[in-house]
Amino acid sequence: MEVTSPEQESAGPLTRGCQWLKALPKEFCAKVMGIAKMAKKLGQDDPRRIIHSLKVGLALTLVSLFYYFKPLYDGFEDSALWAVLTVVVVFEFSVGATLGKGLNRMLATFVAGALGIGAHCLATLSGRTAEPILIAIFVFVIAAIVTFMRFFPRLKARYDYGLLIFILTFSLVSVSGYRDDQVLKMAHQRLSTIIVGSCISVIVCICICPVWIGEDLHNFVAANMEKLGNFLEAFGDEYFKVSEEPQSNVNKSFLQGYRSVLTSKSGEETMANLARWEPGHGPFGFRHPWKMYLKLGNLTRECAYKVEALNSYLNSKIQTPAEIRGKIQGPCEKASRESSKALKELASAFRKMVRTRSAILHIASSKTTAEELKNLLKQSVWGEADVLEIIPAASVASLLLEIIECIEKIAEAVYELAKVASFRNRDATVLPERPDLLHQGAVQQVSDIDMLHHVITIAE
Amino acid sequence: MEVTSPEQESAGPLTRGCQWLKALPKEFCAKVMGIAKMAKKLGQDDPRRIIHSLKVGLALTLVSLFYYFKPLYDGFEDSALWAVLTVVVVFEFSVGATLGKGLNRMLATFVAGALGIGAHCLATLSGRTAEPILIAIFVFVIAAIVTFMRFFPRLKARYDYGLLIFILTFSLVSVSGYRDDQVLKMAHQRLSTIIVGSCISVIVCICICPVWIGEDLHNFVAANMEKLGNFLEAFGDEYFKVSEEPQSNVNKSFLQGYRSVLTSKSGEETMANLARWEPGHGPFGFRHPWKMYLKLGNLTRECAYKVEALNSYLNSKIQTPAEIRGKIQGPCEKASRESSKALKELASAFRKMVRTRSAILHIASSKTTAEELKNLLKQSVWGEADVLEIIPAASVASLLLEIIECIEKIAEAVYELAKVASFRNRDATVLPERPDLLHQGAVQQVSDIDMLHHVITIAE
Repeated sequence: MEVTSPEQESAGPLTRGCQWLKALPKEFCAKVMGIAKMAKKLGQDDPRRIIHSLKVGLALTLVSLFYYFKPLYDGFEDSALWAVLTVVVVFEFSVGATLGKGLNRMLATFVAGALGIGAHCLATLSGRTAEPILIAIFVFVIAAIVTFMRFFPRLKARYDYGLLIFILTFSLVSVSGYRDDQVLKMAHQRLSTIIVGSCISVIVCICICPVWIGEDLHNFVAANMEKLGNFLEAFGDEYFKVSEEPQSNVNKSFLQGYRSVLTSKSGEETMANLARWEPGHGPFGFRHPWKMYLKLGNLTRECAYKVEALNSYLNSKIQTPAEIRGKIQGPCEKASRESSKALKELASAFRKMVRTRSAILHIASSKTTAEELKNLLKQSVWGEADVLEIIPAASVASLLLEIIECIEKIAEAVYELAKVASFRNRDATVLPERPDLLHQGAVQQVSDIDMLHHVITIAE
Repeated sequence: MEVTSPEQESAGPLTRGCQWLKALPKEFCAKVMGIAKMAKKLGQDDPRRIIHSLKVGLALTLVSLFYYFKPLYDGFEDSALWAVLTVVVVFEFSVGATLGKGLNRMLATFVAGALGIGAHCLATLSGRTAEPILIAIFVFVIAAIVTFMRFFPRLKARYDYGLLIFILTFSLVSVSGYRDDQVLKMAHQRLSTIIVGSCISVIVCICICPVWIGEDLHNFVAANMEKLGNFLEAFGDEYFKVSEEPQSNVNKSFLQGYRSVLTSKSGEETMANLARWEPGHGPFGFRHPWKMYLKLGNLTRECAYKVEALNSYLNSKIQTPAEIRGKIQGPCEKASRESSKALKELASAFRKMVRTRSAILHIASSKTTAEELKNLLKQSVWGEADVLEIIPAASVASLLLEIIECIEKIAEAVYELAKVASFRNRDATVLPERPDLLHQGAVQQVSDIDMLHHVITIAE
C-alpha cells in the first residue's frame, strides 16, 4: 500500500473507499503477473513439468472412460472410483516413482485383501456378537505391527507406500465384511480396479516422454562434479588477481554454484531408491549399480567441503599480500586449472557413459604440480614475511593438495562404476609415460584404475 | 551354508535333504532373531515409535465403530469406508504432519467437491451426448493445471497433499455424476466422512502422548550445536596429544558425531514446514518463529564445514612435528575449549528456552585467546622450522579463529531468536568487565545482542 498523504486522509470515507478499490485491481494484477512469471520460469527451467501435467490430465481422462462406456462400467460399477483414485495417487513425475507406487499398491492390495478375507471368515465363525470384537482386535494388531514396520529403514526406503496400502486394504476388507456379505466380490473388484488404474498410470508415464529418474540421478552426479570443476577453474584467477576494486561482488555468482553440492545428499538417496524400480532403458541396464552413485556422490561432497574451505579464503579479512602470494601463484594456478580439467573430463566422460582415460593425464599433471608446490613450500619461499600473513596463502596451497587427492578418489570411483556398469570403451588415450602399454593388447588388459595408479605413481 | 565335507557328499540325496532341512530352521531363526533385535533397537532408540503404532491401531479401531453400530452406519452407509481410508492416510507420526494433512484434506475436499458439483451441473445442461465430453475436458484441464501448481515451491512445501486431494475429489465427484444422480448426496457424504476421519486422527494424535515436531526441531537444532561443541572439546587434546600409538582408532567415534550436522539441511526444512501447522503447546506459541530455526541451522552448518576442515588435520599425513605444535598448544587448546563451552552453553540455554548470558563470557574469553594466538603467530614463533611442516598447525590455528567468528554469529542468532520467541529471562550473569551495567535496571534495558557486541569489543 502507498503512504497516504494528509490531503487523502482529510477526504471523506467514500473517496478513500474508491481509491482503495482502484488500488485493489492494481495489486491484484501485480500478484497475478507475479504468479504467471513464476509459472513461466518453472516451465522454462524444466519443460518436462508441463508435459507431466498434461500426462496426468490424459491418464485421468482415460480412466474416466470406465464411467462413460456402459460395457466397461458394468464390469466394475461403483468400484470404478478406485481406478480413478489409483491414477491420481500413483501417477508421479518419474517412471521410477510411478512404478514403485504402482507395484507397491497392487502387491499390498493383493496380500492384504487375501488376509482380510481370511480374517473375515475366521470372525464370522465365532458368531454375530463376537465378530466385531474379533475383527477390531485383528485390525488393531495388524495396524500396530505394520505401522511399526514402517520405521525399519530398509522397508521405509522401498516399501513404505506398500505397507500403508496394506493397512488400508486389510482394514477396509475385514471391516466392510461386517455389513456386506459379498466380501470376496468387493476384494476382487478393489484389486482389479487398482490393477487397471496402476497399469494406465504406468503405461502413460512410460509411453509419453518418460522421465527416467535414473537418468536424472546420472546427470545430477555429473553436474555436481562439473560445478566443483567450474569453481576450481575460476578460483586461480580470482584468488591471485591483484584486487584493486575489492567491492566488485557483481559477477561472482559463478563461484557459488558449488554450494548446492554441499546439501545434495538426501536428494541423491531419494533418486537412487526410486531408480531401482526402473526397468532397463537406453544405456542403463536393469541392475544398473545405482548404489555406487551414492558412493560417488559422497566423495564429491567430501571434495565440496574442501572447496567450501577454499572459498572462505577468497573473502577472508586477513589476506596474504599480493607480492607474497605471487611466489606460489604459478603452481597454485596450474594445480587449480589441472584439477578443474580433470574433474570436468571425468564428469563429461561419466555423463556420456564412455570409458576414456583423458582425465588421468590431468590428474597426473596436477599431481606433478602438487609436488612442485610442496618443494616450493619447503624451500622457505616466503623469506622474512610475517607468518600470520603467510598462513592464508599456505592454507590455500595445502587445500589444493588435498583437493587433488580427493579428485583421485573420485576418479577411482568413476572408473570402478564404469567397469561395473560396462560403459563403452572410447579410446586408448596416448600416455607418453609408458609407451610399452600402448600396444592394443596390453591396453585392453590394463584396467583404468591400474592405469590411474600407475600414471600417478610416475607423476609422484 | 556350511561347506560340505567329502563324506557328506558321498551320502545319499535323502540324507543331504535332511541336512538341508535341518539347516533351514537355523538360518530362519537367525534371520528372525536379527529382525527382532532390529525392532528392539528401533523401539529403544525412540519409544514414541511404539506408542505411535498403538495409536494408529486405536484410531482405526475407533473409526471402524461406524460399521459396527447400526445408528452410526445408517448415517453414512458405504461411505464409511472413506473415514477408514482417511484415518490410515492422514495419521502421521507428528501432530504437525497429521494436522497439516487433515486440514489439507478437509479443505481440498470441500472446495473440489463444490467445484465438481458445479462442473456436473454445467455438463448436464448440455445434454446426454455432450455431457461426458464436457466432463472429460473439465477433468483434463483441472488435473493438468493443479498438477502444474504442485511444482510451485511454496505450494509444494505446505499444500502439496491438498492439491492432490483436490484433483482426486474433483474427478470423483464430476465423473461419478454421470452414473449417479445423487451427486450432492455423494459429495456431502464424502466430505462428512473425511471430516470424521480427520478429526478422529487429529484427536487421537494430540490427546495420547503427542509428538510435537516443533519440539523435535528445537531439540534437533540444539543437539547439532552440542555435537560441534563435543568435537571442539575433544579436538584440543586429540590434536596436541603426542601420538605414540598412531593406530589407536579405537575410541574416536565421539569425534565423528558432528558429521550428521553436515547433511541436516533437508531434515530441518521438512520439520520447520510441519511445525508451522502445530497449535501453541507448552513453551511454543502458535506463531513461534520456526523460520529463524532454519537460519540458526544454516549458521550451525557453516560452522560444521569448518569443523570438517579441522577434522581433516587430525588424520592428515603431513603433520607438524610435536615440538613445533607445542609452541601454539596453550592458546589453541584454550580457544578450542572455550569455544566448545560457549557452544554448549548456548545449546543448553536454547534447549531450556532461557535467556542467559553465560555463553557471552566464554565467547569473550575465546576472543581474547584468539588475539593471543594471533600475536603469537605474528612473533614468528616458529623459528627456523620448515614452512611445509608449519602449515598444518598454522591452518589449525587459523581455522580455530574462524570457528570462533562462526560461534559469535550463532550466538547472535540464538539471542535474536530468544528475543522474538520471548524466552524467559533467567539471570543477569555477572560481567566483571562492566560493573556499571549490573544495576538491575540497566541490565533489563540492555539487550543480549548489545551485550554480546559490547563484551566482545572489550575482549578485542
